[in-house]
Amino acid sequence: MTLLTDFGLDDAYVGAMKGAILALHREATIVDISHGVHPFAVLQGAFLLDSAWRSFPAGTVHVGVVDPGVGTARKAIAFKAAEHFFVGPDNGLFTFLNDPISESVELPTPPEAAPTFHGRDVFAPAAARLAAGASPSEIGRPRQEEPVRLPDAWATKVGEAWRALALHCDRFGNVISNLPIRALARIRAANGTPVRTVETYEDAAPRELVALMGSSGRIEFALREGSAAARLHVAPGETLLVT
Amino acid sequence: MTLLTDFGLDDAYVGAMKGAILALHREATIVDISHGVHPFAVLQGAFLLDSAWRSFPAGTVHVGVVDPGVGTARKAIAFKAAEHFFVGPDNGLFTFLNDPISESVELPTPPEAAPTFHGRDVFAPAAARLAAGASPSEIGRPRQEEPVRLPDAWATKVGEAWRALALHCDRFGNVISNLPIRALARIRAANGTPVRTVETYEDAAPRELVALMGSSGRIEFALREGSAAARLHVAPGETLLVT
Amino acid sequence: MTLLTDFGLDDAYVGAMKGAILALHREATIVDISHGVHPFAVLQGAFLLDSAWRSFPAGTVHVGVVDPGVGTARKAIAFKAAEHFFVGPDNGLFTFLNDPISESVELPTPPEAAPTFHGRDVFAPAAARLAAGASPSEIGRPRQEEPVRLPDAWATKVGEAWRALALHCDRFGNVISNLPIRALARIRAANGTPVRTVETYEDAAPRELVALMGSSGRIEFALREGSAAARLHVAPGETLLVT
Repeated sequence: MTLLTDFGLDDAYVGAMKGAILALHREATIVDISHGVHPFAVLQGAFLLDSAWRSFPAGTVHVGVVDPGVGTARKAIAFKAAEHFFVGPDNGLFTFLNDPISESVELPTPPEAAPTFHGRDVFAPAAARLAAGASPSEIGRPRQEEPVRLPDAWATKVGEAWRALALHCDRFGNVISNLPIRALARIRAANGTPVRTVETYEDAAPRELVALMGSSGRIEFALREGSAAARLHVAPGETLLVT
Repeated sequence: MTLLTDFGLDDAYVGAMKGAILALHREATIVDISHGVHPFAVLQGAFLLDSAWRSFPAGTVHVGVVDPGVGTARKAIAFKAAEHFFVGPDNGLFTFLNDPISESVELPTPPEAAPTFHGRDVFAPAAARLAAGASPSEIGRPRQEEPVRLPDAWATKVGEAWRALALHCDRFGNVISNLPIRALARIRAANGTPVRTVETYEDAAPRELVALMGSSGRIEFALREGSAAARLHVAPGETLLVT
Repeated sequence: MTLLTDFGLDDAYVGAMKGAILALHREATIVDISHGVHPFAVLQGAFLLDSAWRSFPAGTVHVGVVDPGVGTARKAIAFKAAEHFFVGPDNGLFTFLNDPISESVELPTPPEAAPTFHGRDVFAPAAARLAAGASPSEIGRPRQEEPVRLPDAWATKVGEAWRALALHCDRFGNVISNLPIRALARIRAANGTPVRTVETYEDAAPRELVALMGSSGRIEFALREGSAAARLHVAPGETLLVT
């Protein structure tokens, strides 16, 4: 099982979720993808989930809890895709999942509760039961709707330019964008700063801002021996105007 | 088994503790509650432990290491409560544990050593042996005393006001207080800032400071779309004058 | 298995590595030593690995990924020492390993790739196969060379003084140096600040800068109720002139 949340690691919320999982399924193997998603940053969470889940073995249950939408019409859902299971709020967290979805269900939720409560008392138990071998139909009510997709998921063309955004900025200062791969050949500048397109990191000169297809499978902006995020003055969720 | 310390995650101290546990009991399942307790902040650690341990299955061993009191008269202890086991320094870390205690023992400790040494060489081995099925009496010397309770654990009434403190401030800016639940109905202000009591987060207007019974089961101060901790200028362990 | 990287915990790189390990060896027990190594700080990583691996049971596989040297002549290696296995780049990460080395191999690597790619696609699979019982000779090509040792690993004498450096500064402000233990008796000052040598932390007065043999088995500078790192104005990798 994997966990992805915006809970951070200083509070006890992640530990309590794990306890609730182990209380229902003691044999669970629980791996953290990240709990460093910015509070309520659903699209950043969607990217981080997308960049990690395929590395796990078939049958893995992936639980995401970012801004689960307390007391709103937002549903808690679970479904199967590409032989993996997914559990989380229906708020766009599964935006980048392109595989066909099956066995989609809506999970029972209390009418109102804190987001961290949802992690421990709604999503953790559902995930534990899936990991223990239950099918989605045993833990929720069948639903027909596809999961919500966020409109900002991919950059849009504005004349010759791209209106993009930073999905994520990693620890090394790389800026992961939502540009489609086909845009790579024509990138000349981002937020007014000149950019050169390269094939690999080693093609960049020190302190030169480059664009390349990174290990995330997306177009990343990188600065050897420096931070592309700082050079571009950009944080996750912020705009990148690419020409 | 769960771990709660003030060691942080950047150093190798937590990893070394886990190695020592696995060296004695390879089948141990080890879950982090938090290693982000402020250095030496025993009451914050006591709160975080209290907010998580009940989520775990019966029989779980909970190890806490916060300010274990090097070279002092402070004891290292282990005991059983509510079908769970607890291991740690007798410094107030178990202040909020109200369940009856049994099988209390004092653990053997070297006369002097660094706190991080205690984690790996005193508490980790004791916990490993309990997790492997030993009873407390097999790992220490019986003791009669109840664990130390910290005097600041609960707010005190000063005339019509409450002299409280922030047990913890979470990642979302919520301030978890040590006010008794019965105080909730009459909260008008905290540190001079007006506060409205609500039932759920959704009852708050954006940027309005509210008090409610949070997911921790305690009175929390919260600010929708903002940080109550910043609004109240309060950090864990600091005073909250509530009127 | 243990992991030590400079990937941090906010990105999904560590999660993806763990997924790749579990995809090959579902029974793997994976423990984090630290992912808080400063980006590219090989010597700090070498210290943290050195301070933790001996706590783990014999047979443990230790994976280190810090600055794996993309697209250079640097090799990816695996070997056995003291009944433990080690996997990582041959860049000095194993500088402090003094035990005799056997079964040393060079791992197959793609000609060029991002460092984080190396973690998931080179080092993680090698470690998974070792953990599942493969011998190094089954996962790589035999090599004769000893792993690279960093020249800065130990302080050097300059007349009566020591030119040392901070291997690491821990969460409590302790500065772990690369001074040899024999230097302890004669320390009078560090970076111009007076220092007193003591046997244990309790021998220090509050706010007094002391040097002692710490829980790391190295000479540490410590400040009771304060940060020695702040007092000495030193960060990991920076110089300590000790007289």
